[in-house]
Amino acid sequence: MKVNQQDTITALATAAGVGAIAVIRLSGKNCFTILNTVFRTKKEKVKDFASLPSHTIHFGYLVDDDKTIDEVLCAVFKNPHSYTGDDTVEINCHGSSFIQQQILELLINNGARLAEPGEFTLRAFLNGKLDLAQAEAVADLIASTSASSHRLALQQMRGGFSTQIKILRTQLIDFASLIELELDFSEEDVAFADRTKLTELVQQLLSVIKKLRESFAAGNAMKNGIPVVIAGKPNVGKSTLLNALLNDEKAIVSHIAGTTRDVIEDEIVLKGIRFRFIDTAGIRPAKDEIEKIGIERTHEQLKLASIIIYMLDANQTSPADLQMELSALKSQLTNTNVMLIPVINKIDTLKNDLQLTAYKNLENIIFIAAKKQLHLDQLTNKLLSFIQSEQTSNSDTIVSNSRHATSLSNAEAALQKVVDGIKDNLTTDLLAFEIRDALQHLGAITGEIYTDDLLANIFSKFCIGK
Amino acid sequence: MKVNQQDTITALATAAGVGAIAVIRLSGKNCFTILNTVFRTKKEKVKDFASLPSHTIHFGYLVDDDKTIDEVLCAVFKNPHSYTGDDTVEINCHGSSFIQQQILELLINNGARLAEPGEFTLRAFLNGKLDLAQAEAVADLIASTSASSHRLALQQMRGGFSTQIKILRTQLIDFASLIELELDFSEEDVAFADRTKLTELVQQLLSVIKKLRESFAAGNAMKNGIPVVIAGKPNVGKSTLLNALLNDEKAIVSHIAGTTRDVIEDEIVLKGIRFRFIDTAGIRPAKDEIEKIGIERTHEQLKLASIIIYMLDANQTSPADLQMELSALKSQLTNTNVMLIPVINKIDTLKNDLQLTAYKNLENIIFIAAKKQLHLDQLTNKLLSFIQSEQTSNSDTIVSNSRHATSLSNAEAALQKVVDGIKDNLTTDLLAFEIRDALQHLGAITGEIYTDDLLANIFSKFCIGK
Repeated sequence: MKVNQQDTITALATAAGVGAIAVIRLSGKNCFTILNTVFRTKKEKVKDFASLPSHTIHFGYLVDDDKTIDEVLCAVFKNPHSYTGDDTVEINCHGSSFIQQQILELLINNGARLAEPGEFTLRAFLNGKLDLAQAEAVADLIASTSASSHRLALQQMRGGFSTQIKILRTQLIDFASLIELELDFSEEDVAFADRTKLTELVQQLLSVIKKLRESFAAGNAMKNGIPVVIAGKPNVGKSTLLNALLNDEKAIVSHIAGTTRDVIEDEIVLKGIRFRFIDTAGIRPAKDEIEKIGIERTHEQLKLASIIIYMLDANQTSPADLQMELSALKSQLTNTNVMLIPVINKIDTLKNDLQLTAYKNLENIIFIAAKKQLHLDQLTNKLLSFIQSEQTSNSDTIVSNSRHATSLSNAEAALQKVVDGIKDNLTTDLLAFEIRDALQHLGAITGEIYTDDLLANIFSKFCIGK
Repeated sequence: MKVNQQDTITALATAAGVGAIAVIRLSGKNCFTILNTVFRTKKEKVKDFASLPSHTIHFGYLVDDDKTIDEVLCAVFKNPHSYTGDDTVEINCHGSSFIQQQILELLINNGARLAEPGEFTLRAFLNGKLDLAQAEAVADLIASTSASSHRLALQQMRGGFSTQIKILRTQLIDFASLIELELDFSEEDVAFADRTKLTELVQQLLSVIKKLRESFAAGNAMKNGIPVVIAGKPNVGKSTLLNALLNDEKAIVSHIAGTTRDVIEDEIVLKGIRFRFIDTAGIRPAKDEIEKIGIERTHEQLKLASIIIYMLDANQTSPADLQMELSALKSQLTNTNVMLIPVINKIDTLKNDLQLTAYKNLENIIFIAAKKQLHLDQLTNKLLSFIQSEQTSNSDTIVSNSRHATSLSNAEAALQKVVDGIKDNLTTDLLAFEIRDALQHLGAITGEIYTDDLLANIFSKFCIGK
């Protein structure tokens, strides 16, 4: 990412389109000089922005020579007390697209350049205003669409996760320096680093890292939504259930056209957790149709699911049928962590309750009448228990970024080699190599170690203006 | 418009959707109290917003009890130095729709209510921060999509037009008071108001008002775009011309789906002026088809046009044909102000220039080759001359609001009755009635006189958040 940090950059910071107002950001070395040229107060006076106190707001006009472009409020943030850490002005203008365009052109004609996606946040990172994990959380926060994804992003942005990683890394660095010292004196065959203590520390680190890495499953589900497949024979009421869930007053519903997928999915947010219902056309794991499950597409869908609701019609099934169908389904599953919820539907149409009591020896079955919205709360509670079982407490750090999960995995593998190496009396230089590797991976999470490619990859996914 | 001015109101002020940041406005009596409840600084400290200086920015967190909702910047504007004139805080938050919603809910739960469309500007009007014509200009400014509509709105918002109307009205009020005095002493048959001077003044007012009223045609065209119809026989190259104009590099093009119309129109912005090309299917005023023009739809389209480009094929026509077709077309036009531009197309396909010289006695004809983009600049200059002929100078006030045009018309009619009445020795009370009527109409423009219905009608067209 070969960006010039000396440039003064500008971009629309608010959503595109027409609003009452819009905010245009200008940040960099020449920020105040540019404003001095284009800003006038009511009495045609020039202000010297460099002399204004930080965190103050100034009313006036943006002018292109004698042409007035807009009446604006300029918020002044002085280096280092700004989002980027550089001198910054946020211009609060009228929200027409035409005016936004005119102002951007005016600033560019006076020496600014249009910011790249995420460039304001990149500068904040390079200026040490936030670390890499915090910067990534900014993007997650903007993209958050549910209470859980929002909470995760906010936690991460406020640095909880970063602090934890930095503590782990510092502990390891202390030992690493002792190991490196041994290398300097390698001809003398001394051991500055106590191998027992090192093993102890690395074991401790491993257990924390493992816990963090394992939290990614829940974190990812909380961030991107939990994929749910509703399966079952035709006419057992799968669509009725989906509609009943969607229409439930407690649920916030959105129909989204997938951006990275072709299929249109339904989404429900229950108590802040997003559930994504994957199109299940084609999943009919009935006795006589089990053979047909082999279809690639269906397999793919089942692989994607974290939860499978398996539905049966109360009038068309027996406990024996259910068990058979479930075991047939289970044999198709490659993901052993999937939560399988057997649901018996249409219980309102049964002539007597005897049929239901027949199931009493089978556990975890939910009996509903989707059409009449009967016992749906039992099903939604079951759905919610998926995340609660994954997530022990609110205060625990949860990893929701796949880059972090990969780095944790790599660090874990390197540290495991350290433990094994000590046991096997590995040479000091090989131990040092693995420790350095682990430090590298942990450092990459918070950006204490980074490459231009890594930065380019992370910030190019940001929106312009952030 | 029975709105409670005591309420503290809130709304998203930036465009809906996801952006890097969003701005939420909170304004009213309890604005600072609400912020004191939900805002915390980094060290969990409460700020007393009422004690903060106006036009300052404060970094912190919005919290719902112990739940953090977002990291925000709060810009403080203290009564009367705010947009509305009331205490106001603009909350600069992260731009996710979820967060925007959460913050609005938080503010509402703590005593604010969601603002009605235009309610912030309505309060600004009621608090005397801007008059009605200026308030209307705010909406025009936000909706502006071309340089000319933008300039008009900005001029009006800065009060040029309002000042002019207020001066006219003040002059009339002085005389009105003398007339009213005569009514008080009506039994004594005295004349305090010099009829000759009154006639002189009213004549002066009339000439200014007439000029303003007449500027509306240009003002409306500049604001909403100039409607252009391209007419002519089939295959003379109408679509080719439209495409050539649209593809011209100088033109900014947008294909808009009409919101108040069914037809899809093409738009071109030439030197800041917007031209709207109206679908002309059905207009074929050829010799043998003139009878067919009678179709209602075609008539409607011709009525809408400010400019008609009438095209002919250079190979298929003669000066005599042209004159006949033009006079046939003119007989169909009800709008005498329409600009009719005869265009001879396909001049590149002529075998010799003799055919063109035959037209030399006819004025204002433009010869082009649309396919080869030949002489298109002559046509665009002609199109631009429409607005330049209507608009004598940039410094002249131009009326672009139909409500203002109607009020000016009504004031003009009333004042004309005053002039006629003086001539006809009308009784003082009837003169007074007409003068009051004129004052009423002029006062309605700037809002010195208003009704709740008028305000409701104006502000309901605003967007929420303005």
